[in-house]
Amino acid sequence: MATVKTYRRKLDLSGRVDLSHGAGGRAMAQLIAEIFHSALDNEWLRRGDDQSVFEIGAGRLAMTTDAFVVSPLFFPGGDIGSLAIHGTVNDLAMSGARPLYLTASFIIEEGFPLADLARIAQSMGAAARDAGVFVIAGDTKVVERGKADGVFITTAGVGRLPHGLELSGDKARPGDAVLISGSIGDHGVAVMSKRENLEFDCEILSDSAALHGLVEGMTAAAGASLRLMRDPTRGGLAATLNEIAQQSGVGFRLEEEAIPVKPEVAAACELLGLDPLNVANEGKLVAVVAPEAAKALLDAMRAHPLGRDAAIIGAVVANERRFVQLKSSFGGSRIVDWLAGEQLPRIC
Amino acid sequence: MATVKTYRRKLDLSGRVDLSHGAGGRAMAQLIAEIFHSALDNEWLRRGDDQSVFEIGAGRLAMTTDAFVVSPLFFPGGDIGSLAIHGTVNDLAMSGARPLYLTASFIIEEGFPLADLARIAQSMGAAARDAGVFVIAGDTKVVERGKADGVFITTAGVGRLPHGLELSGDKARPGDAVLISGSIGDHGVAVMSKRENLEFDCEILSDSAALHGLVEGMTAAAGASLRLMRDPTRGGLAATLNEIAQQSGVGFRLEEEAIPVKPEVAAACELLGLDPLNVANEGKLVAVVAPEAAKALLDAMRAHPLGRDAAIIGAVVANERRFVQLKSSFGGSRIVDWLAGEQLPRIC
Ligand SMILES: Nc1ncnc2c1ncn2[C@@H]1O[C@H](COP(=O)(O)OP(=O)(O)OP(=O)(O)O)[C@@H](O)[C@H]1O
Ligand SMILES: Nc1ncnc2c1ncn2[C@@H]1O[C@H](COP(=O)(O)OP(=O)(O)OP(=O)(O)O)[C@@H](O)[C@H]1O
Ligand SMILES: [Mg+2]
Ligand SMILES: [Mg+2]
Ligand SMILES: [Mg+2]
Ligand SMILES: [Mg+2]
Ligand SMILES: [Mg+2]
Ligand SMILES: [Mg+2]
Repeated sequence: MATVKTYRRKLDLSGRVDLSHGAGGRAMAQLIAEIFHSALDNEWLRRGDDQSVFEIGAGRLAMTTDAFVVSPLFFPGGDIGSLAIHGTVNDLAMSGARPLYLTASFIIEEGFPLADLARIAQSMGAAARDAGVFVIAGDTKVVERGKADGVFITTAGVGRLPHGLELSGDKARPGDAVLISGSIGDHGVAVMSKRENLEFDCEILSDSAALHGLVEGMTAAAGASLRLMRDPTRGGLAATLNEIAQQSGVGFRLEEEAIPVKPEVAAACELLGLDPLNVANEGKLVAVVAPEAAKALLDAMRAHPLGRDAAIIGAVVANERRFVQLKSSFGGSRIVDWLAGEQLPRIC
Repeated sequence: MATVKTYRRKLDLSGRVDLSHGAGGRAMAQLIAEIFHSALDNEWLRRGDDQSVFEIGAGRLAMTTDAFVVSPLFFPGGDIGSLAIHGTVNDLAMSGARPLYLTASFIIEEGFPLADLARIAQSMGAAARDAGVFVIAGDTKVVERGKADGVFITTAGVGRLPHGLELSGDKARPGDAVLISGSIGDHGVAVMSKRENLEFDCEILSDSAALHGLVEGMTAAAGASLRLMRDPTRGGLAATLNEIAQQSGVGFRLEEEAIPVKPEVAAACELLGLDPLNVANEGKLVAVVAPEAAKALLDAMRAHPLGRDAAIIGAVVANERRFVQLKSSFGGSRIVDWLAGEQLPRIC
């Protein structure tokens, strides 16, 4: 599809998306040009071909995708646009890859305000620029009123892996140290609070952020001692550690008091009946590292703004049942399960 | 997320998707393992990491994405699963790239039958195998009843470009020949007929198909004489040619009687009040080629099963207003516009 740059009238941003904006004709071309291409502008989108082409040196690429269906679309600390960039950047970064090129696909409900769509596109563009990635291809579909919920965005991305780095969820070994890059629960609580119209003394912001800068310092500091990284998104830290336990065939022993939780997040979780361990994060990572490199890794994390509150929170243990155990400050111990129920839908 | 292969009970396929299937816990892991990984099985998905890694030689990669919101989900000749593979494979193929790796992101409405989801995943797996591509990463979100329409799928993909081939929408030049790979309108009419519950003497099937095999023969035959290819999806042949006209700053002159339309499709279009030129295709391509190579390209297309009915349908002309003109069999001529209205929503 060609990016036609001049239309008789500019899009009226006080208007709303209608079915013609997804029908493949002139109205769609104008919407894409004036809302999306202007916000995400780069040489690839400007071409307007059905695909974009980039040069790459020989080596390994990482590839991933996530759909974003967060509700509400705008929340303290971010919105679906920035989140859709951060989420895919982070899944790439967890392999140690440098994120490079993203795609973004929009499913829009008929009647959605054009001004909100523009705001989302702008936020996406800003997040992409901040992260140093390019959205080089997109798609725009419109469905009838009542057949979606405002806007859903799916991003996919590719990144380049540095030579020699091989991280994977099956690499945790008993004795390894477990680190987290900062406080948990911020994102889920920020979204839930907004959804439930809760007001707190100090506003709780989503931690939504691109983590590849932090990761760069970590791989430099820990090298081959780094076993794996993962971003504890849906299901929170509890789900992430249970997943790794399954993949690596190990258990975890965590120190409850070592896990950073902001007091206001802890308070909000009490009010909402949530355990911060189950709440999604969008700007945090868990790292598993050989014990001898744990201190160096921690220092590297703390040296980065997004790892300032990093902490060693426990260790990998041999455990046939692959349990994640949490030692409380009172000396007790409980098993942190991987929730089966409907924990926090639509937070990402 | 780990692919945990054993659960206490297997998923009951007579059941329905609920919010827990998107919540990041055990229920989601089981859904992904038993519905998606079993259907799409490959070494990358089996790892269960947040991203997948592949080796690549130095060169150029093409990347693209499309969301699929077709309604109904199952239609004569295909379903949303196979369509989601073909659509992204074709957008890659239009650059001459060999499609390699895809991602697939699902947004599922609460209450959707698990059996239908399994059928879609199986169809996707079969289409990927037939096309020789791998779905190496995915995502699964569930939204509340009434917040989506069954299932939406977004695929993204990368492919490798052969050395030296540089196709783009801005390369059409006056005098170039315009070819189509077969009859137009089949996909849109198949979907619309199913939606409107129309019955015809002979069932009209979607043309949904992966075109990269056809493309391979074309690039071999036409080499550097090939200017560009494009798949006339939403908006049909009319939109595609208008787009290229804009990008290249040219006009088109088409011979109406040279454009292949199946009689049953023409009849259905009359009944539905549609012009086949505006109706979506999902297994056709338009090619623009230097005139001296047109015959060789046509022969190459006809030698492939998906190009059996290929035809030279007109030529690129110099035209400042970038009009697409259609010469009818009676000698008259009309301008084929790029529709502005709400032509055929939800056909892909
Ligand atoms: N929301 C968006 N943001 C950025 N670019 C977009 C967006 N939607 C579409 N594009 C870009 O606009 C151009 C046309 O997209 P379009 O979806 O019409 O192409 P297509 O995929 O070939 O057609 P179809 O979706 O009907 O199969 C492409 O270059 C695409 O990358
Ligand atoms: N529908 C699907 N088809 C195929 N694979 C899938 C599907 N959904 C998820 N996966 C795969 O399952 C694994 C876990 O996906 P998940 O979405 O939980 O990871 P994540 O993106 O890191 O988490 P989040 O989506 O919460 O950010 C990944 O390997 C992913 O590629
Ligand atoms: Mg993710
Ligand atoms: Mg992740
Ligand atoms: Mg598209
Ligand atoms: Mg397409
Ligand atoms: Mg296309
Ligand atoms: Mg995901």
